[in-house]
Amino acid sequence: MSEKVVDFSKTSGKPIRCRAAVAREAGEPLVIEEVIVAPPKSGEVRIKIICTSLCFSDVTFWRLKVPPAYFPRILGHEAVGVVESVGEDVHGLTPGDTVLPIFLPDCGECTDCQSKKSNLCSKFPFHVASLMPRDGTSRFTDLKGEALYHFIYVSSFSEYTVVDVASVTKIDPAIPPNRACLLSCGVSTGVGAAWKTANVEPGSTVAIFGLGAIGLGVAEGARLCGATKIIGVDVNPDKYELGKKFGVTDFVNSKDCGDKSVSQVIREMTDGGADYCFECVGLASLVHEAYASCRKGWGKTVVLGVDKPGSQLNFSSFEVLHSGKSLMGSLYGGLKPKSDIPILIQRYLDKELELDKFVTHEVNFEDINKAFDLLLEGKSLRCVIWMDK
Amino acid sequence: MSEKVVDFSKTSGKPIRCRAAVAREAGEPLVIEEVIVAPPKSGEVRIKIICTSLCFSDVTFWRLKVPPAYFPRILGHEAVGVVESVGEDVHGLTPGDTVLPIFLPDCGECTDCQSKKSNLCSKFPFHVASLMPRDGTSRFTDLKGEALYHFIYVSSFSEYTVVDVASVTKIDPAIPPNRACLLSCGVSTGVGAAWKTANVEPGSTVAIFGLGAIGLGVAEGARLCGATKIIGVDVNPDKYELGKKFGVTDFVNSKDCGDKSVSQVIREMTDGGADYCFECVGLASLVHEAYASCRKGWGKTVVLGVDKPGSQLNFSSFEVLHSGKSLMGSLYGGLKPKSDIPILIQRYLDKELELDKFVTHEVNFEDINKAFDLLLEGKSLRCVIWMDK
Repeated sequence: MSEKVVDFSKTSGKPIRCRAAVAREAGEPLVIEEVIVAPPKSGEVRIKIICTSLCFSDVTFWRLKVPPAYFPRILGHEAVGVVESVGEDVHGLTPGDTVLPIFLPDCGECTDCQSKKSNLCSKFPFHVASLMPRDGTSRFTDLKGEALYHFIYVSSFSEYTVVDVASVTKIDPAIPPNRACLLSCGVSTGVGAAWKTANVEPGSTVAIFGLGAIGLGVAEGARLCGATKIIGVDVNPDKYELGKKFGVTDFVNSKDCGDKSVSQVIREMTDGGADYCFECVGLASLVHEAYASCRKGWGKTVVLGVDKPGSQLNFSSFEVLHSGKSLMGSLYGGLKPKSDIPILIQRYLDKELELDKFVTHEVNFEDINKAFDLLLEGKSLRCVIWMDK
Repeated sequence: MSEKVVDFSKTSGKPIRCRAAVAREAGEPLVIEEVIVAPPKSGEVRIKIICTSLCFSDVTFWRLKVPPAYFPRILGHEAVGVVESVGEDVHGLTPGDTVLPIFLPDCGECTDCQSKKSNLCSKFPFHVASLMPRDGTSRFTDLKGEALYHFIYVSSFSEYTVVDVASVTKIDPAIPPNRACLLSCGVSTGVGAAWKTANVEPGSTVAIFGLGAIGLGVAEGARLCGATKIIGVDVNPDKYELGKKFGVTDFVNSKDCGDKSVSQVIREMTDGGADYCFECVGLASLVHEAYASCRKGWGKTVVLGVDKPGSQLNFSSFEVLHSGKSLMGSLYGGLKPKSDIPILIQRYLDKELELDKFVTHEVNFEDINKAFDLLLEGKSLRCVIWMDK
């Protein structure tokens, strides 16, 4: 996959000096600077990042001024890389292995990781982590000796990063790196939500609120599951043409429904309601519309969008009781990183899963701030940032 | 089952004059009086009621002063009877057949009735009906010629009633009538919620909020499904001993948790949360506790309790998204009357399903108001009212 053969034995066990894009202040352009990346401790892996893509969660925690935002910090969490070295007690990974660092840990040992029903590791519970999970310290320091914060166990806006082995999934290096990195967060969240969380049945109808990368991932997942009607809902009419590339068959412009609510329109389009509705924006009011758009008797509403902290979802007690509908949420689309991601990669290699069309832009590492601009301007779906090209 | 052989051919096609307990004013004792029950029209069945039990929904709509309460009305909806005559276009039912009239229609033809996933008939959608479903008229008149309102398609506080064929389930007459009638509403709702709505897995943990007939039905259903820890939650400590008869293994007195919330106590008892939680009281705050008592990663919360109209359920958007839990509701425990009730009856006949212990009192029809007193005083679980003993 990488044409260069790197002799990792030279750096193993030593600190590495390399470039990172450091978020020094909320909302200010990232600063490319040299940092020191410590060797991995027990249970940790140091990874040479090949490329990383920009997800909206990076932007959210770059703009946020209060905890769980911390500065200076190395953001980035959609990435692919190669193992440079491993700490003690790391088994099954060797320098040179192609891996995805994934924000959701999968320790493989706890009750949740051993259950097919959960993807929420209880040994390392997900939170907006700013340090390493086992000892609560940082592996990054700047050249003045100041520690830099990590970001959700990944921190991929650096040529090298250190990640807990619970957050590392070994993958088939046959997949191009600028496709593999997409699977670390947004696209997988959408595909997984259709596949694992909702378990979309063949022949069913689906409504997706918000056609960003997650929503389009849901469409792609629903298409793979055999859904026959996939309705995209967005305020931007251009999203219909885009959505068609990922399986969207019908479109509702929520600004263009006249006297009707979006849910009324969807119920009319689906003979009573969609079998599955996905909220991918992060607005409580849209969760309510999604729930109202679902088919009574069996409709499932899946919450994927991240609303502002403290926001509440309100439902009529009568409707919950009498509708036979269900409401669920999931992190990372309910996917278990180490077992499910290799399946998605194989489906990409088998030309079943569409990943190529998610990548709208690619930039070099030194132009990382351009990736932020493109996403904030609504111009990019996924912009891949290459570390070394 | 009935020792008397009745020659129904004498009454077929003619109005029947018989006794009924009429609710003439909200909250006032029912009046036993003679009424005229018209012959069944097309698609309808006239049933001679054998016995009926009192459910709390009867009390709710007896006390309520505003629509959907209407007076004068014949209440009652947990009953068993024998087909007296059938209208045109009724197939598969013959005079003398033992049947349950059930408040939730099952037409057998609509999308919902033909789907295994739904029990919410769309030909005759459930509502708090006061008239016959096909022509919106009443089959009851008093001796002054005034029409009497029906109640949720059943009206079993009468020696004879007329019910749509969609609301009639033919059953094995081997089951004693004072056990069969229980399956028309409360007990089935509980058992079905564990079996069909939640699909409780063997070896799992269950928490039940409120140990009335529905909650105890949930316990019984969970026990049949193989749950190993069934925690009852109630403010009345006497409910623990009662609950043990239906599979309850542990008890939490919600008034006796000290500084802890009920959900904290349950999470501690279940190593992180119960696999399934059932709210059987009808309080939004308890739904919230039930949701908080569920295991992250896979916990299911089922809403069964009927709260006051307009009440809202509130959930933190963050919790819904990050917990991997699901919330669902169901009517009649998700049971499809015509296919699932015969299964429950067989399980009773096979001595697997406990029904006997739900019956705490039995009265004659003329003492029907005593059944109301017993339920309101918290003395009865189910009081069976015999029409003709």
